[in-house]
Amino acid sequence: MREVAVLGIGQTKVEEHWDKSLRELAGEAVLTTLSDAGVSSVDALYVGNMLSGASNRQQHLGAYIADWVGLKNIEAIRFEAACSSGSAAFRSALMAVASGEVDTAIAVGVEKMTDVLPAEMTKSLATAADAEYEGAHGLSFVALNALIMKRYMYEYGWKHEDFAGFSINSHANAVHNPYARFRKPITEQEFIKAVVISEPINILDASPVGDGSAAVLLVPLENLQKSPGKRKVKVAASATATDSIAIHSRNDPLWLSAAEKSAKEAYRQAGIGPEDIDVFELHDAFSIMAALSLEACGFAERGRGPELAKNGDITLHGRIPICTLGGLKSRGHPVGATGIYQIVEVVEQLRQEAGPAQVQDARYGMAQNIGGSGSNIFTHIFEAL
Amino acid sequence: MREVAVLGIGQTKVEEHWDKSLRELAGEAVLTTLSDAGVSSVDALYVGNMLSGASNRQQHLGAYIADWVGLKNIEAIRFEAACSSGSAAFRSALMAVASGEVDTAIAVGVEKMTDVLPAEMTKSLATAADAEYEGAHGLSFVALNALIMKRYMYEYGWKHEDFAGFSINSHANAVHNPYARFRKPITEQEFIKAVVISEPINILDASPVGDGSAAVLLVPLENLQKSPGKRKVKVAASATATDSIAIHSRNDPLWLSAAEKSAKEAYRQAGIGPEDIDVFELHDAFSIMAALSLEACGFAERGRGPELAKNGDITLHGRIPICTLGGLKSRGHPVGATGIYQIVEVVEQLRQEAGPAQVQDARYGMAQNIGGSGSNIFTHIFEAL
Repeated sequence: MREVAVLGIGQTKVEEHWDKSLRELAGEAVLTTLSDAGVSSVDALYVGNMLSGASNRQQHLGAYIADWVGLKNIEAIRFEAACSSGSAAFRSALMAVASGEVDTAIAVGVEKMTDVLPAEMTKSLATAADAEYEGAHGLSFVALNALIMKRYMYEYGWKHEDFAGFSINSHANAVHNPYARFRKPITEQEFIKAVVISEPINILDASPVGDGSAAVLLVPLENLQKSPGKRKVKVAASATATDSIAIHSRNDPLWLSAAEKSAKEAYRQAGIGPEDIDVFELHDAFSIMAALSLEACGFAERGRGPELAKNGDITLHGRIPICTLGGLKSRGHPVGATGIYQIVEVVEQLRQEAGPAQVQDARYGMAQNIGGSGSNIFTHIFEAL
Repeated sequence: MREVAVLGIGQTKVEEHWDKSLRELAGEAVLTTLSDAGVSSVDALYVGNMLSGASNRQQHLGAYIADWVGLKNIEAIRFEAACSSGSAAFRSALMAVASGEVDTAIAVGVEKMTDVLPAEMTKSLATAADAEYEGAHGLSFVALNALIMKRYMYEYGWKHEDFAGFSINSHANAVHNPYARFRKPITEQEFIKAVVISEPINILDASPVGDGSAAVLLVPLENLQKSPGKRKVKVAASATATDSIAIHSRNDPLWLSAAEKSAKEAYRQAGIGPEDIDVFELHDAFSIMAALSLEACGFAERGRGPELAKNGDITLHGRIPICTLGGLKSRGHPVGATGIYQIVEVVEQLRQEAGPAQVQDARYGMAQNIGGSGSNIFTHIFEAL
């Protein structure tokens, strides 16, 4: 397999884009990416999207988006792995370029969630859970995460306010990200007093839905080296693993085994360990998920993830900066696009383009995208050359 | 890239499987395939499915099916490219094995269409068309194909009864396929007198929906050569292309440019021409599509596809046998599974396991799967070794 590098990135602001259609959003991200890469076409377009069939009455997004942006007759496919759909598209784009099957590929994530009523969206999101054993009982994803968080607090003795640091960090960092949905810092008191959605999860534990699209263009590393310009970023590792779709089937519902497995494999491929990671874009769909991800990926002992939020380890100047441009919590979580937003943000950090949110001397960046309640996890590591 | 071969195949009957859930259907195909291959596990499971979010309130089928069949912690992703979802999953499985990223991969297609009312299914299928320019005007896929067929008949002077041979051939061949939905031969008179659905398309021009699942297991060719047993089949070519999603955007709505492009590329990869193909599993969702596919792939002159149905060229003993185990028309068209059914049937032919439907001395078999009204087409060629 050949080594693969990032030639271009692009993204739209995460927002309620009532003035733009699904293809206009995705088109904006793709065209920005082509422009950033300085090329006019690619061999393949891989689309990450979870919900367009239900939310936009439009499936078949490969042909739909390729057609819209004028990429005539190219290969184009949609990938769905719930909230990890974006990373699923990215991983296949990577394999397509690495294998030599294509020389240039764009992975684009897109989701347009605010065209339907919230109750309908909650039902659609629940299709990522087990329809027969979870969905049929009315369990939404907030409820599933609330069950996990409650058990975690009971098992390890944490109080709800101990999670405040995750939300405060994400909001503080999003201030510097022009593409983020919420660019407003919050205080610990605001976190503590926020409206409860599904006890113990409150509104500041939970990431917001939104409309958005992000894209990344991959080429063989050898081709990149011929084109001078921006700082070079290569894909150092790609790994994925699944866990049971229903939480009740797991030996330990408080352990993200697919995160552990894919992170370990990614470290192995990159030839590094967690101590080498300078930026970690993790999947903070809910603050409990940030804690569990840090533990599964080797940054905290089991049951001690919240310590990193309390002691500042996760901030831009801390030991392991996370959600450096707002994370799911504050950049927003347009589900099928999120995995690509995370990768775009890692690339911004490694290119030293993150402005006031820049992590100094970032060399290795990791993006981890979770589908379902931990049932499908993709871990990618990038290296600045 | 390494060469890739088929180690195992499996399928369920296409039927109204009201007694089986989506995962039970897919599980049956996957477990049969593992058994046929003589292995107990794989590295990756790629799922082709179009409609489960709407029809079964279940998405995230990668983790869902891997979990169900006990393939713990493996890579698993769902692919969607409308009615070509199955082939999209197959192509990515192929690239994953070819690139060396995984050593064994199953591509499984599954669709469970009969749990919802027909009107709802028609609406869901229309999400493969352009929602704003086709779907919004109430155009169903039957209607889109009726427009194409009408124009084709006008342009080239064919009568509706000239298409009878396509349906007669599919029904005759399905008699020998225990997995086919309709195992009953039909006559020319029955075709002519069949109920019209959307003029000029009648019920015997159109493939039926259905529930079903089919799977194929891929390994590097070098590994296959170590394991004696069934006749060896390798993947000789894989190609795909897109066209505009809406028919009105095409220069020529009567020409499947993505079929032509992907077939030419597939012939190039395999080092052969159309005259070398012994079996062609084409995408006869409607009889007009069979005619257009034969033309685009080099088996008939433009506008002369129906001649092959009239003169017997497409039958088991003809020049280019198509739909040898019933095709979409008579095996049935569980949309996201169809691409894999086609590949499974080609493998059956190349392994000389097709019973009374066996094409003598079949060496090269081609499977071509169409998504939307020709907007996404995958062409695969297989070779018996």
